[in-house]
Amino acid sequence: MINYDAFFSHSAERMKESAIRRMGTVLAQGRDIISFAPGYPAPETFPWADFQDIAASLLSSTDGAVLQYGPTRGYRPLLDVIAAIMEHRQVKTSLDRLLVTTGSQQGLDLVARVLLDPGDVVLVELPTYTGAITAFRNAQSEMVGVPQEADGIILDALDETYERLHREKRRIKMLYVVPNFQNPTGLLIGLEKRRALLEWAAKRGVLLVEDDPYRELYFEDSTTEADVRPIKADDSDGWVVYLSSFSKTLAPGYRVAWIDAPPPIAAKFEIAKQAADLCSGGFDQRVIYEASRRGVLARQIPLLRAHYQHKRDVMVDALTSAFGATVTWPAPRGGFFLWASLPDQLDANAMVARAVEHGVIYVAGEAFFVNGGGRNLIRLAFSAPTPERIREGVSRLSAAVRYELAAIGSPTPSVSAIP
Amino acid sequence: MINYDAFFSHSAERMKESAIRRMGTVLAQGRDIISFAPGYPAPETFPWADFQDIAASLLSSTDGAVLQYGPTRGYRPLLDVIAAIMEHRQVKTSLDRLLVTTGSQQGLDLVARVLLDPGDVVLVELPTYTGAITAFRNAQSEMVGVPQEADGIILDALDETYERLHREKRRIKMLYVVPNFQNPTGLLIGLEKRRALLEWAAKRGVLLVEDDPYRELYFEDSTTEADVRPIKADDSDGWVVYLSSFSKTLAPGYRVAWIDAPPPIAAKFEIAKQAADLCSGGFDQRVIYEASRRGVLARQIPLLRAHYQHKRDVMVDALTSAFGATVTWPAPRGGFFLWASLPDQLDANAMVARAVEHGVIYVAGEAFFVNGGGRNLIRLAFSAPTPERIREGVSRLSAAVRYELAAIGSPTPSVSAIP
Repeated sequence: MINYDAFFSHSAERMKESAIRRMGTVLAQGRDIISFAPGYPAPETFPWADFQDIAASLLSSTDGAVLQYGPTRGYRPLLDVIAAIMEHRQVKTSLDRLLVTTGSQQGLDLVARVLLDPGDVVLVELPTYTGAITAFRNAQSEMVGVPQEADGIILDALDETYERLHREKRRIKMLYVVPNFQNPTGLLIGLEKRRALLEWAAKRGVLLVEDDPYRELYFEDSTTEADVRPIKADDSDGWVVYLSSFSKTLAPGYRVAWIDAPPPIAAKFEIAKQAADLCSGGFDQRVIYEASRRGVLARQIPLLRAHYQHKRDVMVDALTSAFGATVTWPAPRGGFFLWASLPDQLDANAMVARAVEHGVIYVAGEAFFVNGGGRNLIRLAFSAPTPERIREGVSRLSAAVRYELAAIGSPTPSVSAIP
Repeated sequence: MINYDAFFSHSAERMKESAIRRMGTVLAQGRDIISFAPGYPAPETFPWADFQDIAASLLSSTDGAVLQYGPTRGYRPLLDVIAAIMEHRQVKTSLDRLLVTTGSQQGLDLVARVLLDPGDVVLVELPTYTGAITAFRNAQSEMVGVPQEADGIILDALDETYERLHREKRRIKMLYVVPNFQNPTGLLIGLEKRRALLEWAAKRGVLLVEDDPYRELYFEDSTTEADVRPIKADDSDGWVVYLSSFSKTLAPGYRVAWIDAPPPIAAKFEIAKQAADLCSGGFDQRVIYEASRRGVLARQIPLLRAHYQHKRDVMVDALTSAFGATVTWPAPRGGFFLWASLPDQLDANAMVARAVEHGVIYVAGEAFFVNGGGRNLIRLAFSAPTPERIREGVSRLSAAVRYELAAIGSPTPSVSAIP
């Protein structure tokens, strides 16, 4: 048996499996497990009938290009649609700024490869999205976390971190933020803070990577279009690289997302993408284009807002009755996630096995912290399970918590609805 | 205007646009240009009606997973199909060796990222596939070329190159070969040489990356199943990383290809792919799976062999009548490409503009040489244009050659069929 260790790149030596993807493997084992782990959209919301019509018409066309290799930048009519979406989001754009990506994960990967050398610093929120962590880690960059408060990253802490690193002669390349319904916390960056972050980036000469997959999914009981204004909307100078996606508004099984970046950076992304996968799928891109052209996307968005708001309500109610005040969370105003603090004495990572025994999974908070924090935190995705499964899953979770507390010798917290 | 140069990674600084992709941009400008440039399959061969049926049944199923995120390794039933294909190719495999990739370009990119550090040496054929060059260059490796003869890479030259680099204390990680109908030369590595290469890899402790997208497309007038036996078929020890694809047998608009690698390397590829794009498209993978399960793939393959063999004949006849003996090429026994030597005094790169003026394009040979060779060589893809367009394109090419020779003051070669 050959030992391959000597063949692996430094990057490969450091690669770690994503905690979320690992949860996917647990799920694939086919037991009856209710999953609050991966941030999957709800398949019952997908516009199946529209997709059928679109596929039928695309495949009955005589246009060979539908199933051919295509331009690396993306299918031109889809790029025009994306430009219109950006305009709707108050962002001035142009075709030389846009690039279709094979999901937003590819966007993050292109950001890492084009902008990061080993040892470069990326400032990230504490906690932050695991997919960004893995992409930036593979570029052998160093991520430094900055704590958040209710309206996002703490500005003083951000600048202090910058100054410390600057004194240490570190190269601080970018700040990565998810301003709308952050993965994992569900938090929204406040409007003033968005402007302040942009000013800070310009002042410090740091690129701002704005990852915005959940933007359309605000909950209308508490949030308006104005609240989700992209930082990029005020970026007249070109400090912001903006990423968004159709995975949460149409379907992730079509791998279609995009980047809006200053033209010189977009040009590098294009070349990097040539080597990464030549082009995103031609069929997928046309499906998304047609879904937009035919009004399917516009019809979906309000339905999705209501759908996920309802599931958020169901989860919040279930958690409140199951745990009372022993588990807390910031109220999600959009997106897919609820970020729950378990009682202090619990270790969310250690509890995963017990949760699986009880037929429920979540993602332990540690995966989202680049500094090793998050011990008693868990990310619960309410997006995919049905309301019934959400209630049942919370019930199983509360049983798992009770057993775990008993096992570590803590008094059982007062709970009102353990089955 | 911000100068972004200081933000780019070393890798990004070195990134160059692919010559083939650049030709795609020329094409996209919509003039009547006959393209022998990109190696596109012929869209009239795509099984459109079958794809319509498959899409209709996939999208009318109630299976949410069809349009959901999926496992990074790939859709399990598709992996089983790939295992059966590998077995048919005489390769023993198992699920822990297989990974679905978003096109073979992603496979090459994963190879680069998992196995190459800056400065590592990759040995490549002279000439070799540009997509591999860009992927390996982005990993900041150094590619060193080894000349080929009629049955593939020259073994003595290979070992001399190894020894020289070894004396220079270079880390030689891998040898990259395209044994079947190589892109760009169309050459086939002989069976004895395949075995010799494997023995050489084992003796020298160098991984062998075998890229095999054209394998099914052998021309039955001159080539049999036995001639295309993968090197991987004899790889009992695990020196070979094998890549192949459905892009040339079904359609590249679905981005589905695969890697078969020793399990420890495959495990790293999986983690690298998590960060690169999470998973390949769920819809695309199911289309390919269904096309295999329903017998569409098996039905396509003999049709494609005949289709491309005929186009090869048309191009060879047209070139022979247009150029007589002034242009030569090794006879393609499969695949998409004819590798033509123009008269010595011509510079194929410089002639591109004149070819475009005459309404035809090709890829200049230089793009395929890591050592700057190939000045008077061109790659002509006969795969996509219709027979009529092939004849017309060769005619335009011969006019372009005649004008170019006149422009540089060379005597016009004797040609028999310039319009």
